[in-house]
Amino acid sequence: MQTDSMDVLLQKVKEGKITIEEAKTKLSLFEDMGFAKVDSNRESRTGFPEVVYGEGKSAGQIIEIMKALQLKTNRVLATRINESKAGLIMESIPDLIYNEEARTLYWRHEEETEFLFDGYVCVVCAGTSDLAVAEEAAVTAEAFGSPVKRFYDVGVAGIHRLFYFLEDIKKAKATVVVAGMEGALASVVGGLINNPIVAVPTSVGYGANFQGMAALLSMLNSCSPGISTVNIDNGFGAGYYVSLIHKNQSNQE
Amino acid sequence: MQTDSMDVLLQKVKEGKITIEEAKTKLSLFEDMGFAKVDSNRESRTGFPEVVYGEGKSAGQIIEIMKALQLKTNRVLATRINESKAGLIMESIPDLIYNEEARTLYWRHEEETEFLFDGYVCVVCAGTSDLAVAEEAAVTAEAFGSPVKRFYDVGVAGIHRLFYFLEDIKKAKATVVVAGMEGALASVVGGLINNPIVAVPTSVGYGANFQGMAALLSMLNSCSPGISTVNIDNGFGAGYYVSLIHKNQSNQE
Amino acid sequence: MQTDSMDVLLQKVKEGKITIEEAKTKLSLFEDMGFAKVDSNRESRTGFPEVVYGEGKSAGQIIEIMKALQLKTNRVLATRINESKAGLIMESIPDLIYNEEARTLYWRHEEETEFLFDGYVCVVCAGTSDLAVAEEAAVTAEAFGSPVKRFYDVGVAGIHRLFYFLEDIKKAKATVVVAGMEGALASVVGGLINNPIVAVPTSVGYGANFQGMAALLSMLNSCSPGISTVNIDNGFGAGYYVSLIHKNQSNQE
Amino acid sequence: MQTDSMDVLLQKVKEGKITIEEAKTKLSLFEDMGFAKVDSNRESRTGFPEVVYGEGKSAGQIIEIMKALQLKTNRVLATRINESKAGLIMESIPDLIYNEEARTLYWRHEEETEFLFDGYVCVVCAGTSDLAVAEEAAVTAEAFGSPVKRFYDVGVAGIHRLFYFLEDIKKAKATVVVAGMEGALASVVGGLINNPIVAVPTSVGYGANFQGMAALLSMLNSCSPGISTVNIDNGFGAGYYVSLIHKNQSNQE
Amino acid sequence: MQTDSMDVLLQKVKEGKITIEEAKTKLSLFEDMGFAKVDSNRESRTGFPEVVYGEGKSAGQIIEIMKALQLKTNRVLATRINESKAGLIMESIPDLIYNEEARTLYWRHEEETEFLFDGYVCVVCAGTSDLAVAEEAAVTAEAFGSPVKRFYDVGVAGIHRLFYFLEDIKKAKATVVVAGMEGALASVVGGLINNPIVAVPTSVGYGANFQGMAALLSMLNSCSPGISTVNIDNGFGAGYYVSLIHKNQSNQE
Amino acid sequence: MQTDSMDVLLQKVKEGKITIEEAKTKLSLFEDMGFAKVDSNRESRTGFPEVVYGEGKSAGQIIEIMKALQLKTNRVLATRINESKAGLIMESIPDLIYNEEARTLYWRHEEETEFLFDGYVCVVCAGTSDLAVAEEAAVTAEAFGSPVKRFYDVGVAGIHRLFYFLEDIKKAKATVVVAGMEGALASVVGGLINNPIVAVPTSVGYGANFQGMAALLSMLNSCSPGISTVNIDNGFGAGYYVSLIHKNQSNQE
Amino acid sequence: MQTDSMDVLLQKVKEGKITIEEAKTKLSLFEDMGFAKVDSNRESRTGFPEVVYGEGKSAGQIIEIMKALQLKTNRVLATRINESKAGLIMESIPDLIYNEEARTLYWRHEEETEFLFDGYVCVVCAGTSDLAVAEEAAVTAEAFGSPVKRFYDVGVAGIHRLFYFLEDIKKAKATVVVAGMEGALASVVGGLINNPIVAVPTSVGYGANFQGMAALLSMLNSCSPGISTVNIDNGFGAGYYVSLIHKNQSNQE
Amino acid sequence: MQTDSMDVLLQKVKEGKITIEEAKTKLSLFEDMGFAKVDSNRESRTGFPEVVYGEGKSAGQIIEIMKALQLKTNRVLATRINESKAGLIMESIPDLIYNEEARTLYWRHEEETEFLFDGYVCVVCAGTSDLAVAEEAAVTAEAFGSPVKRFYDVGVAGIHRLFYFLEDIKKAKATVVVAGMEGALASVVGGLINNPIVAVPTSVGYGANFQGMAALLSMLNSCSPGISTVNIDNGFGAGYYVSLIHKNQSNQE
Repeated sequence: MQTDSMDVLLQKVKEGKITIEEAKTKLSLFEDMGFAKVDSNRESRTGFPEVVYGEGKSAGQIIEIMKALQLKTNRVLATRINESKAGLIMESIPDLIYNEEARTLYWRHEEETEFLFDGYVCVVCAGTSDLAVAEEAAVTAEAFGSPVKRFYDVGVAGIHRLFYFLEDIKKAKATVVVAGMEGALASVVGGLINNPIVAVPTSVGYGANFQGMAALLSMLNSCSPGISTVNIDNGFGAGYYVSLIHKNQSNQE
Repeated sequence: MQTDSMDVLLQKVKEGKITIEEAKTKLSLFEDMGFAKVDSNRESRTGFPEVVYGEGKSAGQIIEIMKALQLKTNRVLATRINESKAGLIMESIPDLIYNEEARTLYWRHEEETEFLFDGYVCVVCAGTSDLAVAEEAAVTAEAFGSPVKRFYDVGVAGIHRLFYFLEDIKKAKATVVVAGMEGALASVVGGLINNPIVAVPTSVGYGANFQGMAALLSMLNSCSPGISTVNIDNGFGAGYYVSLIHKNQSNQE
Repeated sequence: MQTDSMDVLLQKVKEGKITIEEAKTKLSLFEDMGFAKVDSNRESRTGFPEVVYGEGKSAGQIIEIMKALQLKTNRVLATRINESKAGLIMESIPDLIYNEEARTLYWRHEEETEFLFDGYVCVVCAGTSDLAVAEEAAVTAEAFGSPVKRFYDVGVAGIHRLFYFLEDIKKAKATVVVAGMEGALASVVGGLINNPIVAVPTSVGYGANFQGMAALLSMLNSCSPGISTVNIDNGFGAGYYVSLIHKNQSNQE
Repeated sequence: MQTDSMDVLLQKVKEGKITIEEAKTKLSLFEDMGFAKVDSNRESRTGFPEVVYGEGKSAGQIIEIMKALQLKTNRVLATRINESKAGLIMESIPDLIYNEEARTLYWRHEEETEFLFDGYVCVVCAGTSDLAVAEEAAVTAEAFGSPVKRFYDVGVAGIHRLFYFLEDIKKAKATVVVAGMEGALASVVGGLINNPIVAVPTSVGYGANFQGMAALLSMLNSCSPGISTVNIDNGFGAGYYVSLIHKNQSNQE
Repeated sequence: MQTDSMDVLLQKVKEGKITIEEAKTKLSLFEDMGFAKVDSNRESRTGFPEVVYGEGKSAGQIIEIMKALQLKTNRVLATRINESKAGLIMESIPDLIYNEEARTLYWRHEEETEFLFDGYVCVVCAGTSDLAVAEEAAVTAEAFGSPVKRFYDVGVAGIHRLFYFLEDIKKAKATVVVAGMEGALASVVGGLINNPIVAVPTSVGYGANFQGMAALLSMLNSCSPGISTVNIDNGFGAGYYVSLIHKNQSNQE
Repeated sequence: MQTDSMDVLLQKVKEGKITIEEAKTKLSLFEDMGFAKVDSNRESRTGFPEVVYGEGKSAGQIIEIMKALQLKTNRVLATRINESKAGLIMESIPDLIYNEEARTLYWRHEEETEFLFDGYVCVVCAGTSDLAVAEEAAVTAEAFGSPVKRFYDVGVAGIHRLFYFLEDIKKAKATVVVAGMEGALASVVGGLINNPIVAVPTSVGYGANFQGMAALLSMLNSCSPGISTVNIDNGFGAGYYVSLIHKNQSNQE
Repeated sequence: MQTDSMDVLLQKVKEGKITIEEAKTKLSLFEDMGFAKVDSNRESRTGFPEVVYGEGKSAGQIIEIMKALQLKTNRVLATRINESKAGLIMESIPDLIYNEEARTLYWRHEEETEFLFDGYVCVVCAGTSDLAVAEEAAVTAEAFGSPVKRFYDVGVAGIHRLFYFLEDIKKAKATVVVAGMEGALASVVGGLINNPIVAVPTSVGYGANFQGMAALLSMLNSCSPGISTVNIDNGFGAGYYVSLIHKNQSNQE
Repeated sequence: MQTDSMDVLLQKVKEGKITIEEAKTKLSLFEDMGFAKVDSNRESRTGFPEVVYGEGKSAGQIIEIMKALQLKTNRVLATRINESKAGLIMESIPDLIYNEEARTLYWRHEEETEFLFDGYVCVVCAGTSDLAVAEEAAVTAEAFGSPVKRFYDVGVAGIHRLFYFLEDIKKAKATVVVAGMEGALASVVGGLINNPIVAVPTSVGYGANFQGMAALLSMLNSCSPGISTVNIDNGFGAGYYVSLIHKNQSNQE
């Protein structure tokens, strides 16, 4: 609900600039497709356009939603798209970029600049097996205009690999830390840098890992402050979050 | 480890400006009290000085640590301090401010400015029972220099209360959302604003709430992006985090 | 056990109107098929006939049970029927309607009216991925004679979509709210309407969702009253329940 | 948000009958007490006035809230009030009725009728140890105008006790079933009656009961339809719910 | 419900030997005390009289129930009675025996034989800390007429202690094995004897024991057959069960 | 370890009737196949021969073990054998009986009597979907010589079906109750009969059933005594247990 | 069971050097106190004498057991002894040393050497709040003859503190790492040293720590090899384990 | 980070023996392959070279990493390699040994001795189904130079099988105990031997086993000391650990 312009809206009704029906329509800013109600107002409310979560949606549904979004915004991202679905979608929508590792589809209007903000965010990742989640984070942040530096396979079993890259990590605007197994990397990075960390537990591991529960609890209980956490394997959420921090910092300038 | 100045450190050794022993000392920047090793280097590493977590420490131990910190930094915060412990500590250290609701002790050097950054962060809280956690978040953010706006008891059972304050929340630099029970407030706010949200689940509730588990899972699984989560009842962590975002934004300017 | 007519039963025995053996038979009102004992007395006890839960039953078993039920009642519903099983069953039993989304098979006697009660119940659903469960609820309520209004994809990430339809939801006799992920929609609707809500958590989500646990806990702990909950993905149970409320209201008139 | 009168509201603005400021005020119908924002609009939205949840609130806070509610509504209920708190509150507010078993405080305006609806709801309870929760349910339903019949200690270990009262239970408008331990009573009652059942698991039990988890899971997984569930020990929620069903039925007539 | 004599009952009604009212009364064999409905028919149904579970009942309530039971049966047992409650009850009911370790009160009619069956059951217990649960099992079995042999502190850390007593354990009619911590004793005994074992996990332990969960899972997953399990700390249930086996064996003879 | 004959063993050593080496051999009564050590001494220790658990063993391994057992005992049972594995095994070992529902292979020496004990045990089962587990229990009890009566699909949603068969269930020597979903059947049967019940939770259900957890907790927390529980889906364990009770009763006579 | 000397035992029986009765006695090497069976044979079996676990034992019981142990061994340790119990025990047994932090009582025969092995083990501890568990580990290792070096409060939030002491930790024979919260310290140390690590999770933390569950899972899932884990708060187990490694190394020399 | 030679490193910088750039390089001892950063410094830090965890890595990635490791160390081990992946890898790298049961690939330089230490470690395993995990442990220990004795299928259901091999187990330098289901074997062995035990719970089991949780909790809560635990199914971790103990003992000599 475009609550932020309630004043303006009411003012316009009073002044007869818009009819009551028009005012009501303003309150329902979405496109109704039956199976979905695309939120065409989200960018103005939350700073970023709606992102298509591909899991459990058919290629046909995704195509319809992405096309609708292309009319409203210059940057369209879809996540959790497997390869076969991606193929079908790309046949219908030109100029999409598919990232196999991250399982994302991305479209940017040809006149839209690639990067919108100065500086960069970074994505730090503990192990080779966590790459898919790390890439989802990186691609998401890039989709919303943030340059991204990637530091992969720098887990604490060989902590010198992390120290080697520490200076670059410290200069980021915000940092995503991706780790499975015991997720200790988040705490270690948290004790060493001064920009906000978004920790992403991954479901990588076995046995008493419980599909990422071990890393999740580890990150939530970190002894280092300056860390917040998103859902297990939620690379998208973390990439979105650091890009949001990045954007708001840029808006300050 | 002052890894960021490794270059400089090695350069100085080479140039004979410092001895090897001095270099080694630089690598061990803490004060050893036996029961604790106070991290006197943290502010330079992570942007904020060490905070004393009072749970499980005696009044005597806390006094010793706070005094050590007063020599190194201008802002000293201790959390999880119950009333009787607070009394004992305040007898030994003058000029402490005790916040009963938040259970925090705070000291600021007399020459230190109260607020360090422009704008404000805000703390939004679902119910009256979540106040202690919300206050811990607010006091922490203030301790590190952020002005704070509080919006309490605006849970989704009466969602118009939230809408009433929405404009102010949207203008914040970052937002803490504190909620117990089912924690739905975080998702609702997440769909309405464009600054980063740190969600704090509280242990308020009963039965299948499982000491905050319900709210924690709710927040981690939020359908709204732009939300990250800290541990149950971790008001401190959330306040610290939004202040860190606030600080970094200010540094941009 | 037709306990409610125990008086009558005993009276008849005393008056010699029925033999002891007949009386005993009355106490065992079911059809014994070996693998199943179809409860031919359920409609008189609980208001609705037995529904066939298709999971783990063979097509042959389902056919046998549905045919037995067709002799006793005018409305026969089978749930959790996948497409291939449905095909086999429809070859043996004419006039069945298969709903692919809901995975239900439904048969209504040709002389039976479609809708039995005035007014309507409604099914509100958070996301596109929750459709299967929402449809199971809707189809079930319709099977038992309730007109149903559907409001899909109105989750709290774009809460204005819900407000758009609120007037219609408020006029329902009872409301099913279906939501996965964090399930916040139930609480939000609960704070806005005055008819009884049955919340259905779905297993839609990933990571710390734990196959619907997050939404289930969220709904059980809702800060809004007027909400009760059924099992994860139990669209059938919710549709049955609102239709039962609807039926009892109609019986009042 | 009084969304249901949005049309009217906008119409009035257009016609100049109310100012924009007044319209905005309409959107914020609550009383701000700092620590709480009393929802004075709830009765018109959800059918019943706000109920005071006493846990974690001081006697002083409860007094203030109850007094505010007395000005807006004729029936004020507070739950989870222990004996000592109740004493303090009753000193400040006359004419309150305290129910020790249910731990509720209740006030009804002297001109308000005790019961508002015809017929009755019933509360069925498995064991003596579940009485407190059962009474909370019963008192809540009574507070909102429903006559209540109580059937206590009729658990399945001696199932003939249940059958003895079955006729009366079947005639209720809706039924609360309260059970701890394994919660089997809900399923058994569910197979025997035709009015909607709200099951309340209690935390009564030990060992692998896990504070009511066993009964909760049992009720959620009931093989009998016509059962929905509320949180563990949530007698209030169940009483509220059956009274809401009762009220809506009465409104039909 | 005296279902087992349904034939007889109906026959009697037919023959006019009992009235319909009398027949109905037969179906409701309990004593209604308001707060409790004492099951005076249980012994004829299940072989043993009702046992009073003392937890959550007042001394007054227990006295009333025990007195009612004394009129119906020769052996009355109450469990989970703490010392102070026991004192109050013993003031009102003479000839009760209180077992401090087991926290049971027991009464046997003066003309009733102490032991009713030949042979014995045995209670095997892993550690000194499990004694209370073991004693509850032993006292319960004795209360129902079984002689009991006790073998305590024979856990697997010193397995030779178990072997020392093995011959006596093998000669028992049935065996209770009580163990906390990891509960391994049940599996070891299960591989060595040929009478039925009832395993009782206790809540003794700490950390990842989770109040008996470790021992419970261990016993349920035993690699030795011939073991069934009761709830954590449920010494009563195990004692009852082995005495039931013992009784049925005796009835064979 | 043939501990029960330790006396005899030592006596024989002393008397020179067996050598030390022979005595040592007596202590290791198993057949070593490398991948398995078949326990040829189990029947004398525990009353029944070793049963082959087929899960995770190859057809070849099972053949080898079953052949070894055929040399030692007259009754060989293998459980958890899927159809294709069963085919392979039956090609190598003649006279095996495969039960598809129960997934068991059974062999009885041609001179061995089918049933060894008088009377019968019974297997009571809640729903059609629980049949596989119920059959595993029934086949196991038969394998060890117990006649079995089966009562399937008599769950509590239509409790009159249970009452119809109650007399027969009461006359059994011991009773297996198999139930999924909420497992309430065990408690209901437990309140009505006087022979020992072994409850088997099944993994039938969905959502908050958690693969049988709901039924397991329900059975462990039963308010009816006379019930013990085995692992989820452990039909074998329950059949073994009731047959063991049956055997020991017969030995009394 | 002195199984290791079975040969010898049988030989002696054969040679008539001991009687059968004596041989049987050898198989039961414990002291029977009724409430406890003290394992006087443990030192010869497992390398260390039995340790008294004080939780849930009375002062009187502990005194009796310790006195029995003093007759058999030169080093007696009791753990989980609170201060008041310690006082009572020390009145009865002279020369005991009580460690308040570790809550242990220790006695060493006056002629017994304090340390038995060369080199040392070390105990590394993350935070001040973990001290009690760390001390229990340290005291236990010392009780069995290992010199111990302690490095406390060196958690990963200030990882330079750990590096400062790393050389000494690397020279240990084995290392105990004690950590609460997210337990990341174990993984970090595991990546840096080459002696075996025993990780002890502590229950220090709050919220989603779940009484040590977070640290436990973290340690079990460590990405660094060379780490094994004991139960939450089990300082004793860890101290025992490193001392056992230490002892066996010394025996090599 | 080669922290142990920090002194030396700084000394060399001072003396101009290495440049600052070289010193920095020393701090980053890994080979960067993009997707992985192979830890070429691990052997000097932790005593054993890096092991390749095959799960979630492609054959190509594994080949690249193994080849890199072959240049640095004489013993290369890869775990969790399924048969088809193994085939691909063996085509590219000669002289690899694939163990199907353990799913490991192993390479030893032709001039490297097979066994490095005297004596042996042993792997004790409860059931045939646990073989894969047991073999992973055995193969790992052998890979690092320890001779291994295997004792398989000696679970507690037939405990005489364990006693038969006890003397050999007691003579080991360290012992791995592998068990699924209830994991009781660890406790039993723990009470009988005097070398350090590493317990490995396996995910073998069903129902309330919860993929190894039962065995894991059992082992963590063992009543026998001298046991530490690794993750469920972590045969590698256990084999590594006992070999590490073995190595350190050998270094003593």
